[in-house]
Amino acid sequence: MRLDGRRADEMREVFIGRRAQKFPAGSALIEVGSTKVLCAATIDERVPFFLKGTGSGWLTAEYSMLPGSSPERISRDNRSIKVNGRSMEIQRLIGRALRAVTDLSAIGERTITIDCDVLQADGGTRTAAITGAFVALVEACETIYQAGGVFPVTDFVAAVSAGITSDGEEILDLCYAEDSSAAADCNVVMTGAGELVEVQITAEKKSFTRAQLNRLLDLATDGVNELIALQKDALGRDLVWRVGRVG
Amino acid sequence: MRLDGRRADEMREVFIGRRAQKFPAGSALIEVGSTKVLCAATIDERVPFFLKGTGSGWLTAEYSMLPGSSPERISRDNRSIKVNGRSMEIQRLIGRALRAVTDLSAIGERTITIDCDVLQADGGTRTAAITGAFVALVEACETIYQAGGVFPVTDFVAAVSAGITSDGEEILDLCYAEDSSAAADCNVVMTGAGELVEVQITAEKKSFTRAQLNRLLDLATDGVNELIALQKDALGRDLVWRVGRVG
Amino acid sequence: MRLDGRRADEMREVFIGRRAQKFPAGSALIEVGSTKVLCAATIDERVPFFLKGTGSGWLTAEYSMLPGSSPERISRDNRSIKVNGRSMEIQRLIGRALRAVTDLSAIGERTITIDCDVLQADGGTRTAAITGAFVALVEACETIYQAGGVFPVTDFVAAVSAGITSDGEEILDLCYAEDSSAAADCNVVMTGAGELVEVQITAEKKSFTRAQLNRLLDLATDGVNELIALQKDALGRDLVWRVGRVG
Amino acid sequence: MRLDGRRADEMREVFIGRRAQKFPAGSALIEVGSTKVLCAATIDERVPFFLKGTGSGWLTAEYSMLPGSSPERISRDNRSIKVNGRSMEIQRLIGRALRAVTDLSAIGERTITIDCDVLQADGGTRTAAITGAFVALVEACETIYQAGGVFPVTDFVAAVSAGITSDGEEILDLCYAEDSSAAADCNVVMTGAGELVEVQITAEKKSFTRAQLNRLLDLATDGVNELIALQKDALGRDLVWRVGRVG
Amino acid sequence: MRLDGRRADEMREVFIGRRAQKFPAGSALIEVGSTKVLCAATIDERVPFFLKGTGSGWLTAEYSMLPGSSPERISRDNRSIKVNGRSMEIQRLIGRALRAVTDLSAIGERTITIDCDVLQADGGTRTAAITGAFVALVEACETIYQAGGVFPVTDFVAAVSAGITSDGEEILDLCYAEDSSAAADCNVVMTGAGELVEVQITAEKKSFTRAQLNRLLDLATDGVNELIALQKDALGRDLVWRVGRVG
Amino acid sequence: MRLDGRRADEMREVFIGRRAQKFPAGSALIEVGSTKVLCAATIDERVPFFLKGTGSGWLTAEYSMLPGSSPERISRDNRSIKVNGRSMEIQRLIGRALRAVTDLSAIGERTITIDCDVLQADGGTRTAAITGAFVALVEACETIYQAGGVFPVTDFVAAVSAGITSDGEEILDLCYAEDSSAAADCNVVMTGAGELVEVQITAEKKSFTRAQLNRLLDLATDGVNELIALQKDALGRDLVWRVGRVG
Repeated sequence: MRLDGRRADEMREVFIGRRAQKFPAGSALIEVGSTKVLCAATIDERVPFFLKGTGSGWLTAEYSMLPGSSPERISRDNRSIKVNGRSMEIQRLIGRALRAVTDLSAIGERTITIDCDVLQADGGTRTAAITGAFVALVEACETIYQAGGVFPVTDFVAAVSAGITSDGEEILDLCYAEDSSAAADCNVVMTGAGELVEVQITAEKKSFTRAQLNRLLDLATDGVNELIALQKDALGRDLVWRVGRVG
Repeated sequence: MRLDGRRADEMREVFIGRRAQKFPAGSALIEVGSTKVLCAATIDERVPFFLKGTGSGWLTAEYSMLPGSSPERISRDNRSIKVNGRSMEIQRLIGRALRAVTDLSAIGERTITIDCDVLQADGGTRTAAITGAFVALVEACETIYQAGGVFPVTDFVAAVSAGITSDGEEILDLCYAEDSSAAADCNVVMTGAGELVEVQITAEKKSFTRAQLNRLLDLATDGVNELIALQKDALGRDLVWRVGRVG
Repeated sequence: MRLDGRRADEMREVFIGRRAQKFPAGSALIEVGSTKVLCAATIDERVPFFLKGTGSGWLTAEYSMLPGSSPERISRDNRSIKVNGRSMEIQRLIGRALRAVTDLSAIGERTITIDCDVLQADGGTRTAAITGAFVALVEACETIYQAGGVFPVTDFVAAVSAGITSDGEEILDLCYAEDSSAAADCNVVMTGAGELVEVQITAEKKSFTRAQLNRLLDLATDGVNELIALQKDALGRDLVWRVGRVG
Repeated sequence: MRLDGRRADEMREVFIGRRAQKFPAGSALIEVGSTKVLCAATIDERVPFFLKGTGSGWLTAEYSMLPGSSPERISRDNRSIKVNGRSMEIQRLIGRALRAVTDLSAIGERTITIDCDVLQADGGTRTAAITGAFVALVEACETIYQAGGVFPVTDFVAAVSAGITSDGEEILDLCYAEDSSAAADCNVVMTGAGELVEVQITAEKKSFTRAQLNRLLDLATDGVNELIALQKDALGRDLVWRVGRVG
Repeated sequence: MRLDGRRADEMREVFIGRRAQKFPAGSALIEVGSTKVLCAATIDERVPFFLKGTGSGWLTAEYSMLPGSSPERISRDNRSIKVNGRSMEIQRLIGRALRAVTDLSAIGERTITIDCDVLQADGGTRTAAITGAFVALVEACETIYQAGGVFPVTDFVAAVSAGITSDGEEILDLCYAEDSSAAADCNVVMTGAGELVEVQITAEKKSFTRAQLNRLLDLATDGVNELIALQKDALGRDLVWRVGRVG
Repeated sequence: MRLDGRRADEMREVFIGRRAQKFPAGSALIEVGSTKVLCAATIDERVPFFLKGTGSGWLTAEYSMLPGSSPERISRDNRSIKVNGRSMEIQRLIGRALRAVTDLSAIGERTITIDCDVLQADGGTRTAAITGAFVALVEACETIYQAGGVFPVTDFVAAVSAGITSDGEEILDLCYAEDSSAAADCNVVMTGAGELVEVQITAEKKSFTRAQLNRLLDLATDGVNELIALQKDALGRDLVWRVGRVG
């Protein structure tokens, strides 16, 4: 029995709301238990230097926590991208995850910037960010599609955490308290087709075996499938139909 | 008749919600039309160097805009406190406004940090921030009070903008479109007792007369009174009663 | 009776000297009592990105204090523009004040940079900077005028401080000792035509009433008029005649 | 057949030399093919703030590339820790890998800093860094041991890369040319006991299946075992005997 | 015949004025031709970490150019100590020169900070800074002496430049135009006792011989002697008598 | 008799190895006693802004110490170019020394960047860097020459240190222990033709006389001649023949 009464393979309650901000091309608010992340996708009609003239676009992500998002206030300096190794790792992860299901050449010479701002942090902010950012991304790509282009998102993608407790039990979707006492934890990014995009498993306190790794991946597979179903609900039939199809 | 159909002396619809974040000692979400600011008040059991051993506390504020809060994305670098003159001015203003109604010696050797993060910006973010931050501050001070101290907030404080249109008309509570075309604009911070804490009037396009300045202050006075009534609604009878009283 | 024997409505002795530096297009040294500010105006044949191709110019200001200018040495790091909120506010104020009397389209695609470096600080450095910088600006604009353009400065502008003492008396042109004990202080920027460009009143220790605000503005009006007379003396008949006239 | 004639499961030639620098407590030079990393372990008699008084120590790592280490010169600014997300990820990975086999309480209130400076980069610098840094770490810990403490390193640890080519073949120990064209690549950190410490698999170009992931882990297991044998050769019998034993 | 009509061995007109700023413990304005440097010496009752408890003091220098001091405006960012190699070299030179005639143990646990701010630059700013800073230093040390200490300055020190023209002629005290076309230039710091403290000779355009080096040193010796005579005039009999004597 | 048994006029053992790194156009490893510096010369087909369109090239140098190169670990932040005055002085010195024997117009519109990274520091790193960097530079220029240009290096250049001990003895090529106790030290850069490029003599503890300066220069002259002979050995007959000749 877990801290909040969940079964080992049970996710927290998840809510994904679209159009969370008025100005960006796409935006979503995702809540996974007490974790809340605001995701925005902005389209800029420029590309980085190395893509000029190639006809291809770029997608990049930024991740930050609001000062009041966590039990101990996060100072604005420390959370800045430049000095915060953890934020850097996370935003690189978010960028890779979304690029894995995005046809950059279909974007044209544009840059899509994904902003993931954590309003409240209770574990799993990076996986929530990926899952929510996907919804913002699809919303934003509708603009490109309506302007006569190909829909650039080619599959669904979502992410979830799993971990091994200090008692050696494998559990899904760790809250902060579980995460900080876990022996090992793992983030899995998976597509709608069931293929893996990124697997990161770290022994925080105790190394682990291949068998344990396999059980974590089993848990994560179920979790991602659940999340993709919720993304589909949030996006609605028209946008779901668009993903993965050529206009 | 104004862009959004308001009368010259009419404020936009205002909503103030308490407990907008789980972790900070106090927090509020304020919406003034499309402008949305998340305000948090955190208490830290330390004071800056120059206050150590004095028994007195400190209150400081920080202000920032989320990248996706405005029509053009705000890059995280540009919005950083260190390079953004506008943010610096605003957070210094917020700090002064709240300190004007706070008895710092009643805080004890603690620092209250006010974080104002703009989720959506449609004009008047700095005045909304002051008005919302006041609610977060009162909420946070309840902790100090419950621990046996004196309630450190001594009066209400709220802020509103007013301005002169290019046609020379004085209007209250400018939205972004009005603000960017205004001949002059003004921010007024006023207490529950009706006294002024800060008046800033800037001729953006055209200098103005003493008579115009007086009409702007009349408009602002009515606006602030309206906002203080809404702060009282949000705080509820017990906390309203506390403000300005010695425990 | 004030600390230095002045009447409530009396300014300190003011000196404005032209051509204080050899190389800039315009420069002035202003002394207001012990406060000394070196002001330079440099013309650069480039404009910021957003003005390229518009035919219009730009005017920007920078403000800094020499390390040895004040009783406590100011470290070069702390005084840097990027980390010093006070300097940022001041230089934005100086820029707005001068732009209010400058026809930017008459500058052509050039940038005028105003540098205000405080050699000695005894209160009122920002208002002295505006008043002195105006003289440097006019001097620099003569170059543009001689090159066949329209004289871009359209009116005089000067600034002065006023404040309310802890005893509730309104006084003009505060020295440092008066400023640090004032209940409220105010900076007023006014044109030769007697219109207001910027009014900033801040309750440092005690909020204030509308009646007090009006008395402060009366004092400041007299102070600015005195300063504009001194600017005219410093500039000499030819340049005074130029201001506000089309060549 | 691979670019350099290796079999799919064949590592490049590896050399590990001890005492590569005169001053640090431990140091090693590791060469994996053309990749060369200089690893140093320095002991500092201080711990970070959060460990003061706990009796426990800390181990941290830093990673950087010499400007001339790669085909395109790496500017010193870009390689700085603060602005280089990739370096940050890598040094956090190195730190976690070594801490997994280090008993921090046996270090005492000291900090061991691991410096990994890449002299030449031809793929696999991060895994080479972990493998070489382990040797420097053991060397440095001998100082602590000789001073009467417990030997703090509890097991061997080494790391290797594996990847999936664009043709779908799994290969071990990718050189730079292989890495840049790989469909997916993977870094595996494993202990002498055969347990996993960290697994990171990233689909750079194409998502992958569970079956592929398993074949990559098989390859990596063989690679790590080979590397640990070479670490033992480099360290010599006395130090090998020390690892994992209580003095 | 030189640009400004001087003989090869002739210095420009030099003026040294004391008490150039009101607040620092010592200050001087030095003018060497059109070059003007404001020098301040501030005493701080703290020492750097490595001197705590030693009873000894420290002397450090900072050097900066006002934006308007030179023909092309110097941006505040570029002149910042951190990014400006030239400023760094110069302030390290000034510090070494003054420390060479200062008994740091006689300062007590204090730091003397020398600020050299160039108001106008026409060649030789670093040597003018040393010569002027010496006067500010002596003035500041009087405070320490009056408080009952030993006078910490043990000898005079001044500095001058010399150079080789493109025609191969050796000249003294180069102005900016001479400096920029010189084949080689040299800065010499010398004491009142005629000993050398620092000699820096750099071939800017053409390497030079030992014979030329000797002729430059001869010129510089005469120049420094002249400057020390002017320092003595500026300081007056009482302070001159103090230098080099134990109270 | 010196610490390591050398005569006063004896250099430490010197080794210069070519092709120390695989990727840069030129590279060398120089060892002077325990001092080891890795020097790389990279050619970039761009020039700084001020040289565009002039047909002329540029040569710049950077200098840094590896964290583990010295007895006390050098933190990566402190060694950064921007905050380390000593590194800045050194890299400016290296650049000037090499430019003195380089015909920049023969480089074409290219930038040669010299990277000097100290692997181990035991005194004389800056002079070793110059001596080693020259070899890397010649190696890199062969590329330009082979592409049909003129060989841009016009003479040999090498550098050495000398100093005055606290006992007043002049010695050549100081190791770290000698350097830190020296009364004065000196760095001399000299060409193959025997002319001086740069002489820097600093009294660290005691001022010095002209006679002492001359004896230091005598020692340095012998040292540089020895080093140039070793550079010739390292480069080999073909490259030696190239230096100073027009293709």
